[in-house]
Amino acid sequence: MTTPSKTLEVFPNPKPERDYEIHIETPEFTCLCPKTGQPDFADILLDYIPDALCVELKSLKLYYWSFRNEGHFHEAVTNRILDDLVLAVAPRRMRVTARFKVRGGLTTTVVAAYEKPAS
Amino acid sequence: MTTPSKTLEVFPNPKPERDYEIHIETPEFTCLCPKTGQPDFADILLDYIPDALCVELKSLKLYYWSFRNEGHFHEAVTNRILDDLVLAVAPRRMRVTARFKVRGGLTTTVVAAYEKPAS
Amino acid sequence: MTTPSKTLEVFPNPKPERDYEIHIETPEFTCLCPKTGQPDFADILLDYIPDALCVELKSLKLYYWSFRNEGHFHEAVTNRILDDLVLAVAPRRMRVTARFKVRGGLTTTVVAAYEKPAS
Amino acid sequence: MTTPSKTLEVFPNPKPERDYEIHIETPEFTCLCPKTGQPDFADILLDYIPDALCVELKSLKLYYWSFRNEGHFHEAVTNRILDDLVLAVAPRRMRVTARFKVRGGLTTTVVAAYEKPAS
Amino acid sequence: MTTPSKTLEVFPNPKPERDYEIHIETPEFTCLCPKTGQPDFADILLDYIPDALCVELKSLKLYYWSFRNEGHFHEAVTNRILDDLVLAVAPRRMRVTARFKVRGGLTTTVVAAYEKPAS
Amino acid sequence: MTTPSKTLEVFPNPKPERDYEIHIETPEFTCLCPKTGQPDFADILLDYIPDALCVELKSLKLYYWSFRNEGHFHEAVTNRILDDLVLAVAPRRMRVTARFKVRGGLTTTVVAAYEKPAS
Amino acid sequence: MTTPSKTLEVFPNPKPERDYEIHIETPEFTCLCPKTGQPDFADILLDYIPDALCVELKSLKLYYWSFRNEGHFHEAVTNRILDDLVLAVAPRRMRVTARFKVRGGLTTTVVAAYEKPAS
Amino acid sequence: MTTPSKTLEVFPNPKPERDYEIHIETPEFTCLCPKTGQPDFADILLDYIPDALCVELKSLKLYYWSFRNEGHFHEAVTNRILDDLVLAVAPRRMRVTARFKVRGGLTTTVVAAYEKPAS
Amino acid sequence: MTTPSKTLEVFPNPKPERDYEIHIETPEFTCLCPKTGQPDFADILLDYIPDALCVELKSLKLYYWSFRNEGHFHEAVTNRILDDLVLAVAPRRMRVTARFKVRGGLTTTVVAAYEKPAS
Amino acid sequence: MTTPSKTLEVFPNPKPERDYEIHIETPEFTCLCPKTGQPDFADILLDYIPDALCVELKSLKLYYWSFRNEGHFHEAVTNRILDDLVLAVAPRRMRVTARFKVRGGLTTTVVAAYEKPAS
Repeated sequence: MTTPSKTLEVFPNPKPERDYEIHIETPEFTCLCPKTGQPDFADILLDYIPDALCVELKSLKLYYWSFRNEGHFHEAVTNRILDDLVLAVAPRRMRVTARFKVRGGLTTTVVAAYEKPAS
Repeated sequence: MTTPSKTLEVFPNPKPERDYEIHIETPEFTCLCPKTGQPDFADILLDYIPDALCVELKSLKLYYWSFRNEGHFHEAVTNRILDDLVLAVAPRRMRVTARFKVRGGLTTTVVAAYEKPAS
Repeated sequence: MTTPSKTLEVFPNPKPERDYEIHIETPEFTCLCPKTGQPDFADILLDYIPDALCVELKSLKLYYWSFRNEGHFHEAVTNRILDDLVLAVAPRRMRVTARFKVRGGLTTTVVAAYEKPAS
Repeated sequence: MTTPSKTLEVFPNPKPERDYEIHIETPEFTCLCPKTGQPDFADILLDYIPDALCVELKSLKLYYWSFRNEGHFHEAVTNRILDDLVLAVAPRRMRVTARFKVRGGLTTTVVAAYEKPAS
Repeated sequence: MTTPSKTLEVFPNPKPERDYEIHIETPEFTCLCPKTGQPDFADILLDYIPDALCVELKSLKLYYWSFRNEGHFHEAVTNRILDDLVLAVAPRRMRVTARFKVRGGLTTTVVAAYEKPAS
Repeated sequence: MTTPSKTLEVFPNPKPERDYEIHIETPEFTCLCPKTGQPDFADILLDYIPDALCVELKSLKLYYWSFRNEGHFHEAVTNRILDDLVLAVAPRRMRVTARFKVRGGLTTTVVAAYEKPAS
Repeated sequence: MTTPSKTLEVFPNPKPERDYEIHIETPEFTCLCPKTGQPDFADILLDYIPDALCVELKSLKLYYWSFRNEGHFHEAVTNRILDDLVLAVAPRRMRVTARFKVRGGLTTTVVAAYEKPAS
Repeated sequence: MTTPSKTLEVFPNPKPERDYEIHIETPEFTCLCPKTGQPDFADILLDYIPDALCVELKSLKLYYWSFRNEGHFHEAVTNRILDDLVLAVAPRRMRVTARFKVRGGLTTTVVAAYEKPAS
Repeated sequence: MTTPSKTLEVFPNPKPERDYEIHIETPEFTCLCPKTGQPDFADILLDYIPDALCVELKSLKLYYWSFRNEGHFHEAVTNRILDDLVLAVAPRRMRVTARFKVRGGLTTTVVAAYEKPAS
Repeated sequence: MTTPSKTLEVFPNPKPERDYEIHIETPEFTCLCPKTGQPDFADILLDYIPDALCVELKSLKLYYWSFRNEGHFHEAVTNRILDDLVLAVAPRRMRVTARFKVRGGLTTTVVAAYEKPAS
């Protein structure tokens, strides 16, 4: 099986009339360092309040997997994941936290959040 | 003994003149995945401020048990539990947190809350 | 020695001109279930801001002990402890947290708080 | 309900042809100090290899409860529990560990063990 | 999907010339109490040294699942799981540890082990 | 060496133009119970925002040491430490937390705070 | 290799249109005590919201290293690190936390923060 | 109350026919450094198998307290405590573990043990 | 940069006259499932007593990385890593522990060890 | 103050007639990588049974400090520390454990031990 595409699937929010939170956490994210080509590893924490749609779990897993052989900087990939998920899910609020493994004695975590503009 | 019904029993709040919090936590919730029929497992945390009524512990245990052989999605069942408990207890505030076990490397938690409308 | 009475002793707050917090925690609370007569066990956490008086530690220990052979429901006994302590100590603020041991797979915690009315 | 008796019930070991271990732990043991009459609290850990018999859980719970209003020293009560259980269950090996709560700044644990004499 | 059968699948040990250990742990075991019909929950830890065969993971998961709606006592079911696995896998050594959730204030763990007789 | 005096030394804040926090924690505080003469032990946590002055660490250590053979109640000594430090350091904000070791099954923590009046 | 200079390198923020947080933590900071010449050790936690620039990780590692053989007081060096980083990165917000190892029984942590003035 | 004497009281072992273990732990030991006169702090763990006698808890507490204003080196005081306790209790086996608080960045633990000579 | 080769570099043991232990741990191992092609993740713990040679750290990191896009079963890859390292380093003893992330609710750990035959 | 020499001071063992253990732990060891010149950091744990001599704590601290600006490989420096301490202290047994901070995603610990030859 080749690396999957970045397509995110969604399903209708079963309770759109209520603001409620969904947290999805994985210790299994890896991509490559764009400078050195070496693997990077991270825990990814996703927190969101759905609007009309929820992200489907299997497609989210494949989406994370799709970064496996791509080069991405820590700050950029965290914002990219947030942008892709906001585009697919159109949530009321969403936050992505990426806790990368230590490099050069330094441990980096990036946290990016989105809030739907008041209409 | 067959799987019990979803009836929730209540008793009069012994201190309705005060806003106070009740937290009830269990690591023993299980239902089935509606897609695959496979078992899902979760910790359920219930937090509420009672109004006239409190939920009776034994009936709550039976209520949780009643989901054992039913198919439910994570997001839907969390909201369903909140709705059933709000209907039975009519609390001032209530929150249900369901922390599901890892599936496909992803750990999902759903948090749904209710607040009694100001009269 | 028989089970002690519920008398709470107090002493003058040594610093009444300052709002400061006192936390007193014990893992050694036990009473009986009013339905079954079986023992219940709890951790009791007391947090308060004293006004003119502080609760004396030894009498507090005896006070907790006095519940040992009495039947009390979780919700009622937590509010009762708060009421007794508010009456004896007349604090500016006070909170009682009772974390009961698991029964029927459910772990219950009750939190009741008092705030002195603005005069 | 009054304090239960010390009767321990047993059932036939379902696998007597194999040496296997049973561990049963409770944080809910309490008795009285024979000197001061004040309550003592302990965690009790029971570990054993059954021979022909296993201890029935509900009767074990009642057995522990039966100490609630009796005066017992730490060292004596731990050995007493071991003796009672050895008499009732006749195990191949058994160990009782009692971890008492801190008194006078000191935390005491007593561990007593039994091994069936080689025949 | 109905509850699966107890069939365990195996595959050839890729390194039979070496004694090495395989540990497989799950927090997702549940069966019923034969007395009350109520659900019991346990963590199951399997440790073994394979001989000619290893247990296939997916069939192990289905095997654990097959107990879901059956009545089993703690001591018996732990020995049963060991017996079934020893029969299917014929290991050099094997141990099953079942840590059951608290019942009546008591937490029970059962540990059963097998060693292949010296030939 | 005899018990040191309560003199607290200070040095000029190297960055008075910025509000920043200093936290200093020790597990090594001991004084005597004024009633029984018996030793009491506590962790002391000091948090402050300096104004013109910072407390010098060695003198703070000697200051804490100076209580070693003096009788002090929990509530009073915590407020006394705050008062002495506020007098010596004249901070913008300061908080003293004293976590005393368990006495009679009860664990007491006292938290006292100061804020410089707006000028 | 001699001790590196204090030059901090930066790169363009890949998502300047969004306020997001970057956390970088290291347990590997050491400098000297200006009074005694003895080594001090600290964990350094950096948290910031970038504006146009992000700090480059390798240069940050070298920057921390540059303090290795210099004498610095706890309070001063924490503020110095914040000042240097604010100058290089011009962030929207930034905070530096330095948790020093215990000296004389006292554990000191210094926390300094910066916020970009509203324009 | 002045510092108590080093007299250790004992009581008859209630189960001398069995080898069993008694563990007594305290976080409240303090003495002085003989070189500098400064306070030292330690956790003391006592483990022993009694023969004819057990150590009485209150006298043990006073015994530990008696070191409060005396100068003792880490290695010597640990062996001294073991010697005093062996003399008073004449156990079958005994071990004293003293975990001292950090000094100069170094944390020292001393462990001394005694075994009754085979007769 | 493409995935590196499996070449392991070594250097002379600086103290071959002494049996001593080297432990090297990483949370950053990943390979693919040979059945599904999906990524697997593991912590790898290496423990060995060197003989004439030690494994060079950077080459070990590249060696672990070389598995990234290869299909390997849990049991086989753990034994393969041990075999490769034994071949390259010719240690007196060596052990490889691979703790894989949860799949299907099951967490698998494989432990393989080697001991140099007595000559 | 310049980096101190490697001289280790000793004092007479106060209890040479008994085999007892001394453990000394520090999180404050640093030296340089001989290849890159970059700082390395480690926790050093020393465990020994003294014979005629004990190591003096202040000189041990200075001894560890003396490595600060020297280049040493992980395996070599751990054995070097053991050799130096064995030479100075002539213990009955001694062990040095060095837990180095992560480099390249790998965390290395080296454990070297000495036992006095039977005479």
